[in-house]
Amino acid sequence: MQYEYYHTHWTLNCLICRHEIVGEVTEVGRKVKKVKVGDKVGVGCMVGACHACDNCNNDLESYCPKMLLTYNSVYTDGTLTYGGYSDSMVANERYIVLFPENLPLDAGAPLLCAGITVYSPLKYFGLAEPGKHVGIVGLGGLGHVGVKFAKALGAKVTVISTSPSKKDEALNQLGAHSFLVSSDQDQIQAAMGTLDGIIDTVSAVHPIAPLIGLLKSHGKLILVGAPEKPLELTVFPLILGRKVLAGSGIGGMKETQEMIDFAAKHNITAEIEVISMEYVNTAMERLAKNDVKYRFVIDVGNTLAATKS
Amino acid sequence: MQYEYYHTHWTLNCLICRHEIVGEVTEVGRKVKKVKVGDKVGVGCMVGACHACDNCNNDLESYCPKMLLTYNSVYTDGTLTYGGYSDSMVANERYIVLFPENLPLDAGAPLLCAGITVYSPLKYFGLAEPGKHVGIVGLGGLGHVGVKFAKALGAKVTVISTSPSKKDEALNQLGAHSFLVSSDQDQIQAAMGTLDGIIDTVSAVHPIAPLIGLLKSHGKLILVGAPEKPLELTVFPLILGRKVLAGSGIGGMKETQEMIDFAAKHNITAEIEVISMEYVNTAMERLAKNDVKYRFVIDVGNTLAATKS
Repeated sequence: MQYEYYHTHWTLNCLICRHEIVGEVTEVGRKVKKVKVGDKVGVGCMVGACHACDNCNNDLESYCPKMLLTYNSVYTDGTLTYGGYSDSMVANERYIVLFPENLPLDAGAPLLCAGITVYSPLKYFGLAEPGKHVGIVGLGGLGHVGVKFAKALGAKVTVISTSPSKKDEALNQLGAHSFLVSSDQDQIQAAMGTLDGIIDTVSAVHPIAPLIGLLKSHGKLILVGAPEKPLELTVFPLILGRKVLAGSGIGGMKETQEMIDFAAKHNITAEIEVISMEYVNTAMERLAKNDVKYRFVIDVGNTLAATKS
Repeated sequence: MQYEYYHTHWTLNCLICRHEIVGEVTEVGRKVKKVKVGDKVGVGCMVGACHACDNCNNDLESYCPKMLLTYNSVYTDGTLTYGGYSDSMVANERYIVLFPENLPLDAGAPLLCAGITVYSPLKYFGLAEPGKHVGIVGLGGLGHVGVKFAKALGAKVTVISTSPSKKDEALNQLGAHSFLVSSDQDQIQAAMGTLDGIIDTVSAVHPIAPLIGLLKSHGKLILVGAPEKPLELTVFPLILGRKVLAGSGIGGMKETQEMIDFAAKHNITAEIEVISMEYVNTAMERLAKNDVKYRFVIDVGNTLAATKS
């Protein structure tokens, strides 16, 4: 059975989350070539796909119609996927990402979803180039790594946020080049037509007309957050400037590895707060109040070890 | 004064319209190199731009913030532009398009706006390739030449229309490969995920969710008609398939010449009904009822000649 040949069993003896999971390989199937026992590895949002469609053949498993999520999908063996809420996990080697030695497992883990979700559109939509001016809307889990990746890729970065209080963080801690408060009409007006592209990480309903206005002609507004209700789209400004509005999800596995390697090379990690499993309910309450900078990482391995000892 | 050096005076002794104007050159300025007296030429939607910005420097005058429209703009000499409602016209040679000998002036004239508006996005968004499957929404002045260009560029073409009565025309007269009635849920469902790109020519408010559904992953919905009110945009399907929604206007002058040359080579013209100036009011009434296939072309030259004789 192919299943056991290509799969890797690994103990999540480090720090994990729902679908940004890291750990160390403890066992490999007979045909596994990508990793060996002892390797530091991660698994992101997906654990399977058809491996036969155009998307799979082009290393875009994330857009395969049969893509299997790491959490709450029915796996090929009929079992439900439970993500990282476990002390060990088995995964097909195709979905395993090797962590370079210098990339910390805990602060690198959130890159497996948040990182690739911003890195992939920066690359695909041609924004990952020196001389480009990129806007990042929303300074949360995705936005703050978006600033780091866009900067490391050579772009000039403007953070656009509803919270004036985030200005100091954006400019002085994350190194963004400028900061716009989205409700400040004067600031927005002064910046109209200046951005080559925008990665919009906001998943609440919000006006996109000002963001389209901030773009240069031929600029691109990429939505990576999915508001529950429809947004209002005025078409004429898109036509006037041949502007693009697009959605983008996580990248394929090849690009995810490329992103992790790039992060290691440029010392990009997420800002995290490591918590134990017992703290999860409190963390959820704090998340609901936006009280985290920027990602909670659950130390499942050590929590369980402490319970057993 | 630069004005007179570079400008071309031409008599509109053939057939004209508001901003799809054709005629014959009668006089050229001292520095004019592009055309000579007697040449068959056209002028489209624009007659000026700054010639110094990035867009102008990249042959994209149509996206220059100082672009001057052929109709109802204030020209560089302070006069109002009146388009083709005249028996002669003066234009800067940059905005003159040479008509190849075999392209009829009357049926070629509408290409100067309708033609370039569909040709430009087909090229820019990578849909102008053999093997691509392109949808054309709306079978009017723009849509019917859209079908012709997309076919000649090698694409498989599906027409999407609210009118079942247009099926015969689309398939048998224009040579589209298939036809979908946009209100027929079964037809739309059966075609989901099959199109590489769509040129949407509809300028009334209409649902775009089904059109986004018709796209393959990474597909592109290009809006060239501008509804007056905002459209409803559900973001999640864009993210799931990394789909693009964009606006596109007319092309620059270099691309407009390329389009006219391509049309001449592939015998692409618009379907027209030639009318005299006296008929204009009746034509406007018929336009309001969608009673034209597909463009009225006003024969100003001959109408005026008849008046004078």
